[in-house]
Amino acid sequence: MRIELDDLKDFARGAAFLGTGGGGDPYIGRLLAQHAIKEFGHPTIIEPEELADDALVFAIAMLGAPTVLVEKAACGDDIDLAIDKLSERLGRRPDALMPIEIGGINSTIPIVASARSGIPLVNADGMGRAFPEIQMVTFNVYGYPPTPLSVVDEHLNAVVVDAKDAKTAEDLVRSVAIQMGLSVMTANYPVSGAVVKKYAVKKTLTLALEIGRAISLGRKQGEPVNSLLAYLRSTEYYKHCKVLFDGKIVDIKRETTKGFSVGHCHISPLKGDSEGVEIIFQNENLAARINGKLIAMVPDLICIVDRETAEPIPVEALRYGQRVKIIGASVPPIMRTPKAIKIFGPRAFGIEEDYTPIEDIPT
Amino acid sequence: MRIELDDLKDFARGAAFLGTGGGGDPYIGRLLAQHAIKEFGHPTIIEPEELADDALVFAIAMLGAPTVLVEKAACGDDIDLAIDKLSERLGRRPDALMPIEIGGINSTIPIVASARSGIPLVNADGMGRAFPEIQMVTFNVYGYPPTPLSVVDEHLNAVVVDAKDAKTAEDLVRSVAIQMGLSVMTANYPVSGAVVKKYAVKKTLTLALEIGRAISLGRKQGEPVNSLLAYLRSTEYYKHCKVLFDGKIVDIKRETTKGFSVGHCHISPLKGDSEGVEIIFQNENLAARINGKLIAMVPDLICIVDRETAEPIPVEALRYGQRVKIIGASVPPIMRTPKAIKIFGPRAFGIEEDYTPIEDIPT
Repeated sequence: MRIELDDLKDFARGAAFLGTGGGGDPYIGRLLAQHAIKEFGHPTIIEPEELADDALVFAIAMLGAPTVLVEKAACGDDIDLAIDKLSERLGRRPDALMPIEIGGINSTIPIVASARSGIPLVNADGMGRAFPEIQMVTFNVYGYPPTPLSVVDEHLNAVVVDAKDAKTAEDLVRSVAIQMGLSVMTANYPVSGAVVKKYAVKKTLTLALEIGRAISLGRKQGEPVNSLLAYLRSTEYYKHCKVLFDGKIVDIKRETTKGFSVGHCHISPLKGDSEGVEIIFQNENLAARINGKLIAMVPDLICIVDRETAEPIPVEALRYGQRVKIIGASVPPIMRTPKAIKIFGPRAFGIEEDYTPIEDIPT
Repeated sequence: MRIELDDLKDFARGAAFLGTGGGGDPYIGRLLAQHAIKEFGHPTIIEPEELADDALVFAIAMLGAPTVLVEKAACGDDIDLAIDKLSERLGRRPDALMPIEIGGINSTIPIVASARSGIPLVNADGMGRAFPEIQMVTFNVYGYPPTPLSVVDEHLNAVVVDAKDAKTAEDLVRSVAIQMGLSVMTANYPVSGAVVKKYAVKKTLTLALEIGRAISLGRKQGEPVNSLLAYLRSTEYYKHCKVLFDGKIVDIKRETTKGFSVGHCHISPLKGDSEGVEIIFQNENLAARINGKLIAMVPDLICIVDRETAEPIPVEALRYGQRVKIIGASVPPIMRTPKAIKIFGPRAFGIEEDYTPIEDIPT
């Protein structure tokens, strides 16, 4: 595939949808990618199948609280240095780069990295969505750790981490990121081409672009939410999807704590006094609950969109009075195995209930 | 010089004196060194002048709050790995090791490192005493940064830091150390033999041993404090020394915060109701004040010792009712230049007064 300059708006919007509230302002992500493509040319995007088994692939990401990401953008040199420091650690440059998550700004940062470095970008990611923590990646689920990894700030201070397990890596990276001002670049999950082919969530760059296009097309036809749902139904990953709720935001509590944006949001029906829905988030939307009962939960997607335009609304842009629809959608089977649910199912976020797939919950 | 097993008691006691309250329990430091020498043999100790100009020297230290150091000791593998990770980063093994500070447990950790690795140990350090922060080292004062450096915990998680300046390195290392449980091993200040010859504080392993011996000898003669003072007066560095106060501890406030043991201690005269002295500390004793007036301050030494035995009392062992003498002493000229005072004079610790050398303050 190829991402044209004209595609970036749709791509960033689709990535914001898959970001399920997290990953920062897609507008900033789009600007960064636009700027990099104009200056350095288009990145070469390859499919996982094109990778040699022994190819070396790095995931590239920005790490921090979205509320800070919007105030502080990458300069580019920090992205290059993150790749350099991890290469130095491994004694080898990567053959390809990939997004760690397809969601928000972390979908466009790898485009910037690839455009700047000339290293091809793989049409796949490690989540098929966005998650707040670095261990919540399919590679880790199936035994491939995020370390060694590099962390670089905008002043080009650099830290390279080797950790015994993914959660320790997350804790170390998070404390470094907090010290560095909560918005850092990281190169991580150095994995082989064989691992990417086996455990990545594939074609997600294409999916983000197509989701954005479905919203744009729907706007022209006056039915953006329906157009979005129709497209999701046509995909392999997100086909079980529905409007979970239609209403307006009546309460929002959000704070930046321990390096995350955490909180919850209440949405009431537009008319009548039936029960509203509560959305719980940690950077990303984690669960939706009506009357105490979960109606959708991680790893399935819970996206809050503008009810008229289907514009995805990031957690940091939620405001009192917004009229929204909440869309729930399934995720790829590789993200719903018992191993995967252990890493990023509800209990991994402190929600003490078993995972039920969205298509199995009656609404 | 050579440090025999039988010397370790005196050496650790002398180092505890130079630690001016910081650096952890000398008993633990002694046990670690004893164990390493028994298992791996004596370290080769060399003088700075024996180093080639282009030799590579690493400082080796434990970093953390002394209150935690006493509960958690190095296993040895972490020390080896700290050297390995910094070597890996630089593409070269060190030709020699040295203590970053001559004080408390950090005087014996490099003995352990040298015994285990077979890499010679330099009879010098970067402080001529102990200080709480990693930028407070003569090499940094004169333009040689602490980075790249490695940090390793007891589970062998490892972090390598490249920072733009020494204070940033300190902030990053501290946040990593806090995340790792506040007791980590670090290899840092990779400097050349030429730099060690020019800017290290020399012969400090010898001085620590001799200070300990002076206390031991004094005990046999029934005059430990006088014996200690007599020895200090005979040295080049510590010759301006005096008993600043003689009394008993009547109040002590100590807390572990942001990775340090901070607080203050009040000492009243044994008899009469004349004004007592207040000692302010951050891991190490920083200043002594009577009636609001500073009578001694960093970088000069302020050591609290048992008034009968001259046993140096670390900050974490200060107790209500202890009968103590406070000894003040000068430090080497290289640590009293304007550049040095800027890095570890009173204002560097938030004490808003100019540095006055201890010999210029009437008592």
